[in-house]
Amino acid sequence: MVESPRIYTAALIVIGDEILSGRTQDKNIAQVAIWLGLQGIRLKEVRVVADDTPAIVEAVNTLRARNDYLFTTGGIGPTHDDITVDAVAEALGVSVVVHPEARDILTGYYETRGGLTETRLRMARVPHGAALIPNRYTGAPGIRYDNIFIMAGVPAITAGMLDALSGTLVGGSKLLSETIGCWVQESVVAELLQVTERAHPGTQIGSYPFWNEGRTGANFVIRSVDPEVLAACSRALIAGLEAMGKPAIFGGI
Amino acid sequence: MVESPRIYTAALIVIGDEILSGRTQDKNIAQVAIWLGLQGIRLKEVRVVADDTPAIVEAVNTLRARNDYLFTTGGIGPTHDDITVDAVAEALGVSVVVHPEARDILTGYYETRGGLTETRLRMARVPHGAALIPNRYTGAPGIRYDNIFIMAGVPAITAGMLDALSGTLVGGSKLLSETIGCWVQESVVAELLQVTERAHPGTQIGSYPFWNEGRTGANFVIRSVDPEVLAACSRALIAGLEAMGKPAIFGGI
Repeated sequence: MVESPRIYTAALIVIGDEILSGRTQDKNIAQVAIWLGLQGIRLKEVRVVADDTPAIVEAVNTLRARNDYLFTTGGIGPTHDDITVDAVAEALGVSVVVHPEARDILTGYYETRGGLTETRLRMARVPHGAALIPNRYTGAPGIRYDNIFIMAGVPAITAGMLDALSGTLVGGSKLLSETIGCWVQESVVAELLQVTERAHPGTQIGSYPFWNEGRTGANFVIRSVDPEVLAACSRALIAGLEAMGKPAIFGGI
Repeated sequence: MVESPRIYTAALIVIGDEILSGRTQDKNIAQVAIWLGLQGIRLKEVRVVADDTPAIVEAVNTLRARNDYLFTTGGIGPTHDDITVDAVAEALGVSVVVHPEARDILTGYYETRGGLTETRLRMARVPHGAALIPNRYTGAPGIRYDNIFIMAGVPAITAGMLDALSGTLVGGSKLLSETIGCWVQESVVAELLQVTERAHPGTQIGSYPFWNEGRTGANFVIRSVDPEVLAACSRALIAGLEAMGKPAIFGGI
């Protein structure tokens, strides 16, 4: 019997009233998802929660238990609404301490920016036992505790933290994908999609319709960890579309 | 004793592998959040789950029990990866039936588009006992069952469904907000923010920093259901910033 390859999963908690009010359009879900994919890790679930300690604690404890990795974004700045570190520490049952290296980083960063005040020192606070994730933009580091990664909410800063983590996490096979576009109503090819998926075990085909100036089209995204299975499934779908008189556009529309 | 005004809450489940893979940047969280705010309902939590029945069932049952309303987006098309209706019905413990009015709508919509096929009829399936939410763009309706609203994933179609629901839900006082911008590091005014918030019970102040061509600024968002408290808190914050030599920019930067 051949063992299935181990699939590594992650969850993400987006923390912030500004997302739940609609004031800020989240950009971290997509960028964390894409980055995880490159590490061979699948983003399995996301929760967006308010700046509210019980909500964060519940999400942290549920999601870390059932995923290999847990990421959070938001709530690690110096102001009173930044409660992520305290909430994660509460979820873990550990105290919050000032990390000496984080203090040194902030001392350096603020040397020419008015000095390290007590307020700014809040950004050196971590759950006891945590390590740091470098932040090349604004000094204040992200935090790693076991399988939990606590990151900034500002997308450019989050991106820098992800960059610093690239290649450091254990992952599995990357989930590969091909996109095939077609000017066709998805309802016309629904059966073809299902038959093609079933004929290629280990693939999933997603169908994403769009309406563009009166024309209807769809993109079909085929996913598999196996490049040969992926290619075979793509070829079969393209052939099936062509046989219906619907030219396939490789790469999508 | 004065009773606190009743706060109405909603949760949103975004359903779709395309969001979790990062292929598609979600736009529904922000638009549902803003629309709910206008109805006097607060978006309390969001979950993004895969096209996976157990994941949808778990999210539906947890979130509908603890919120006044539950919304879902995604997974109500005609293809094999559209499993939302079946999953919600499973969560509710009811069967799935073809809704006669939905069938009529689809018959009309597809009259000039190749006719109503068995595949397209999938989009008339609803949990037994459900009502319809009009879709003025592409025929296939959204679905309302008790306090659950099942909507499309394509943002323009979702917007049309929200529009059709406007004014029909019971909500409470709208959460009002003012944004005040300032070219200041948030760490410099963290104490002012906290003191101002505490001096105005019933307000929350969020602080959202940004970095722009070497300059650092922040927007402070003050929220309250009471317009007078909101105005007083805004005035106090503006005065506090001015007293520190930091001019406030009403409306934000």
